[in-house]
Amino acid sequence: MALQGTMKAAVLRDRAFHVEQRPVPVPGPGEVLVRTRACGICGSDLHFFKHAHDILERAASLGAPTEDMRRGLAAGLVLGHEFVGEIVAFGPDTEQRLRVGDRVCSMPFLSRQTGTVLLGSTPEASGAYAQYLCLTEALLLKVDESLPDEAAALTEPLGIAIHAVNAARPGPDDTAFVVGCGPIGLAIIAALRLRGIGRIIASDLSPGRRRLARDLGADEVVDGRTASPFAVAGVAAGGGAVVFENTGAAGVLGRVVLEAPARARIVVTGIAAGEESFLPMVAITKELSLSFVIYYTPSEFAEALDALAGGRVNWRPLITGKVGLAGVAGAFRDLEDPERHAKILIDPWA
Amino acid sequence: MALQGTMKAAVLRDRAFHVEQRPVPVPGPGEVLVRTRACGICGSDLHFFKHAHDILERAASLGAPTEDMRRGLAAGLVLGHEFVGEIVAFGPDTEQRLRVGDRVCSMPFLSRQTGTVLLGSTPEASGAYAQYLCLTEALLLKVDESLPDEAAALTEPLGIAIHAVNAARPGPDDTAFVVGCGPIGLAIIAALRLRGIGRIIASDLSPGRRRLARDLGADEVVDGRTASPFAVAGVAAGGGAVVFENTGAAGVLGRVVLEAPARARIVVTGIAAGEESFLPMVAITKELSLSFVIYYTPSEFAEALDALAGGRVNWRPLITGKVGLAGVAGAFRDLEDPERHAKILIDPWA
Repeated sequence: MALQGTMKAAVLRDRAFHVEQRPVPVPGPGEVLVRTRACGICGSDLHFFKHAHDILERAASLGAPTEDMRRGLAAGLVLGHEFVGEIVAFGPDTEQRLRVGDRVCSMPFLSRQTGTVLLGSTPEASGAYAQYLCLTEALLLKVDESLPDEAAALTEPLGIAIHAVNAARPGPDDTAFVVGCGPIGLAIIAALRLRGIGRIIASDLSPGRRRLARDLGADEVVDGRTASPFAVAGVAAGGGAVVFENTGAAGVLGRVVLEAPARARIVVTGIAAGEESFLPMVAITKELSLSFVIYYTPSEFAEALDALAGGRVNWRPLITGKVGLAGVAGAFRDLEDPERHAKILIDPWA
Repeated sequence: MALQGTMKAAVLRDRAFHVEQRPVPVPGPGEVLVRTRACGICGSDLHFFKHAHDILERAASLGAPTEDMRRGLAAGLVLGHEFVGEIVAFGPDTEQRLRVGDRVCSMPFLSRQTGTVLLGSTPEASGAYAQYLCLTEALLLKVDESLPDEAAALTEPLGIAIHAVNAARPGPDDTAFVVGCGPIGLAIIAALRLRGIGRIIASDLSPGRRRLARDLGADEVVDGRTASPFAVAGVAAGGGAVVFENTGAAGVLGRVVLEAPARARIVVTGIAAGEESFLPMVAITKELSLSFVIYYTPSEFAEALDALAGGRVNWRPLITGKVGLAGVAGAFRDLEDPERHAKILIDPWA
């Protein structure tokens, strides 16, 4: 039984957010309707907000299909893929092992007969910047009663961080260099701590972010404006180097290639807007590797929720603000200032 | 007891090769003197011959130490790191488990108290474009009697190929794309066959190189001028993609990033002369990885020699010419034409 009626949503259209009344979505086969309890604003949402039309043009120039995205931008998209909610109703063909009222997280995809769709990417798969959303039942993870909504909403970014750390395959004697301490960089520091990595050097331009990096578990922090993290610390004897480039800022990747120690395993989570250049000769001489990551496996996502529920992540410093739907536009502006914010959560019922 | 006297060597000085009389090198502690039986001309030798002064300038601009290289270029360098030789004399502090007359291969390094030196990189560590050279006893591998010199001299490039394939971690159901079928690309095809990889798609601009790719074991070959290897073949169900970029040609790496299938593990062996650019956004969306490789581990090097000795590599098509020391300059010119040549061996006694 699905709810009838309308709900409030923050709709992205014409490069701005508008709080609108929208129909409550109707769960399809294998889907459940969920009431949103909290949703984080992701760096990729910010990137999309700022660069949607550039991304569209570039995708078109590369011959990628852009029809859905054009349609979405015209009709208005409801973003939001870092969420926790509670089950309100089950659609047809559901197993119903969980109950109405249970709190749940999910990887932000809908598994539909027509294919897998990222929540927030089309008008038919609206995200959690809204009071309700539909989720695929098979992907739901129950949230432990002891875990606050604020922490559960961090499952998705921590899942990315765990995936990034796994891609680097760090050993206990490795030194980790975290370049850029936005929410993903900070979550990577937490994930490195979960893995017991000995020494973590973090760099960021912002003093506030560097304080957060220490709170999350960095051993040393470096002002990226005046020093290179690679100049601060050599690699321990018997250990290697793992590097996380999370800024996506122009020129940073090329500099990391120049400065990283030999055989460093570099993981890139930062989404650069355009082309980046580097010297392959330097990368070859040092036998570097570069892994580009954006998602997670189902088990990495589940591990993130488990680590939060088990109290193994110092998540509270990450949450720096909360807004209602009417506050989304302002939150997007506020997130430009790294001194003020790391993660802002949306409560669509506030 | 070391030999006294002089030997012939092909010396690189003033951007040209000169056949000169040089003193026979004297093996230091832990070293043996070896009579060169054959030495391959490596693509990195060609690269160094063409770009040595650019490499020097770039290294200096990056703040790397260039003193040894400047001195070497002024004094004259003896290149040559793909060799087989026979033991002539033992230096002091040697264990002498092998005998005078034994044929040997070695990773092309000297382990000295002052550090590890690449053969051919300084005047004090001359390589195998000469009648004799010194090697570190602890690195010697005995060559099986049944293995011809021509094959033993391929141990080093096959070691690189095995290392490149290991960096890609291919599974039996993966599809391999080999971009560029010079000697390393061809050796990678052989190494993929050794690993039992199901399907190998190779591309090269040259019809001759494409024929060699088939001889070495490629399932399909593509003319890189008119088609993309990635357009020819999708990835098999249940399998992934491993890609080897061996050209080092300007713009190829960026194109591989654009065209490679999602989650492709890309290994780069081609040494681009300058900067290369690509779209990190595309690499992130597809979760690509790039591994840059140049060397091998001791066990990979030994595996290469074992595979050759065991008759598991179809090496004969790779050898397309032999010259004496006086022919080195001409061989460097001839190697510019991929229709005529893959690997040219030097016999410094011819």
